[in-house]
Amino acid sequence: MGRVPAMIRVSEIFGPTIQGEGALIGLPTVFVRTGGCDYRCSWCDSLHAVDSAFRHTWVPMTAEAILGRIAELSGGRGLMVSLSGGNPAIQPLAPLIAAGHAQGYRFALETQGSIAQDWFADLDWLVLSPKPPSSGETVDWDRFAACLVPGPQVVMKIVIFDEADYAFARDAARRFPDLPLYLQPGNPVVEETATPTGLNERMLWLVDRVVQDGWFAPRILPQLHVILWGNKRGV
Amino acid sequence: MGRVPAMIRVSEIFGPTIQGEGALIGLPTVFVRTGGCDYRCSWCDSLHAVDSAFRHTWVPMTAEAILGRIAELSGGRGLMVSLSGGNPAIQPLAPLIAAGHAQGYRFALETQGSIAQDWFADLDWLVLSPKPPSSGETVDWDRFAACLVPGPQVVMKIVIFDEADYAFARDAARRFPDLPLYLQPGNPVVEETATPTGLNERMLWLVDRVVQDGWFAPRILPQLHVILWGNKRGV
Repeated sequence: MGRVPAMIRVSEIFGPTIQGEGALIGLPTVFVRTGGCDYRCSWCDSLHAVDSAFRHTWVPMTAEAILGRIAELSGGRGLMVSLSGGNPAIQPLAPLIAAGHAQGYRFALETQGSIAQDWFADLDWLVLSPKPPSSGETVDWDRFAACLVPGPQVVMKIVIFDEADYAFARDAARRFPDLPLYLQPGNPVVEETATPTGLNERMLWLVDRVVQDGWFAPRILPQLHVILWGNKRGV
Repeated sequence: MGRVPAMIRVSEIFGPTIQGEGALIGLPTVFVRTGGCDYRCSWCDSLHAVDSAFRHTWVPMTAEAILGRIAELSGGRGLMVSLSGGNPAIQPLAPLIAAGHAQGYRFALETQGSIAQDWFADLDWLVLSPKPPSSGETVDWDRFAACLVPGPQVVMKIVIFDEADYAFARDAARRFPDLPLYLQPGNPVVEETATPTGLNERMLWLVDRVVQDGWFAPRILPQLHVILWGNKRGV
């Protein structure tokens, strides 16, 4: 008998659609959302991939099966694959990345930076999203720094709800001045059936805030998919 | 007597606000819009900087005076300066770029690519926007290629209103496969007092279009400033 392949817990696979956030905004992408998270942010917009109450919906899949589904969705054409969650860093994703690269796919992983993995080095992009105070979580900056492996393009993305989050972002930028930084206004209304409100106002506030401070290094970007599709899943 | 400094015709200088389009979307930027253009696109959203009927509003300024205004707006802090128009390539911008670099500013120039200048080599970013059939203009691809000087990061941005524009974009991508490409749905309602309509629909159509074709290289981005502020000027 051969070796049993490691199983990846998958919450959903969808796309191609455009990436709605951060450094790769606008890029056609297939999303692989894994199930399970070591965090539980108060405003989590992906509870279906975080809360263990949804565990029965997470399907254990081999890297091969996931790649098969990606190929089906993309017509076998290489494109960017976003690995998100939950926290995808707790899944055994190295075989998926290696096999996917061989087939012409590129991989961007999005994680809070609480758990580092050697295989981060094999990624094309690593998006680190340290969670600000409004999340209710606390960042361990040593663990975060351990994620900064050579190899991928590394960027930092921080969600901002209020002044405390903004101060957190300024501190994070001082800690890691070489990481390109993306600020994203928080979306307080995350239920799929709800219409997000006040998105423009929060975005304008954040733009005013950085301009007032003369802080011109970060990019400020809204969640484009929420503007275009609301909180609907799978788009 | 010293040499008379070359005058730059300026339509408006405003900011800092975030860049709303293309490769630098979300980045705090001061905009210097020059007056005068060799094109007259049917859907031009900056006629006040194009149509000679507005010529009396264009102010001849020295590079020094422009830099003084930029420094006033930015509190003297270095940031990205967008040189747009009109077609800024017809202005004598080399001294502005040189003096601005010395003061910590970076420069992105946006032009249709109809007129090449040696000083494009001094830019940080060069955004080439060849105009599609719906503009009523015709691209001279030899002149366009002459703009591709070594030095700046060069990207291509194409506005798309319809299927003919989309076919034009595919052709442009085949001609210049190494240029990162940004596709932008057109905004047919450009009057400042008007509320743009159908922006989401046009964006969704364009996303569907590239996904249907399995064309995963370009980024598809709306005009973020129009979503946030409508057609209002100076934001």
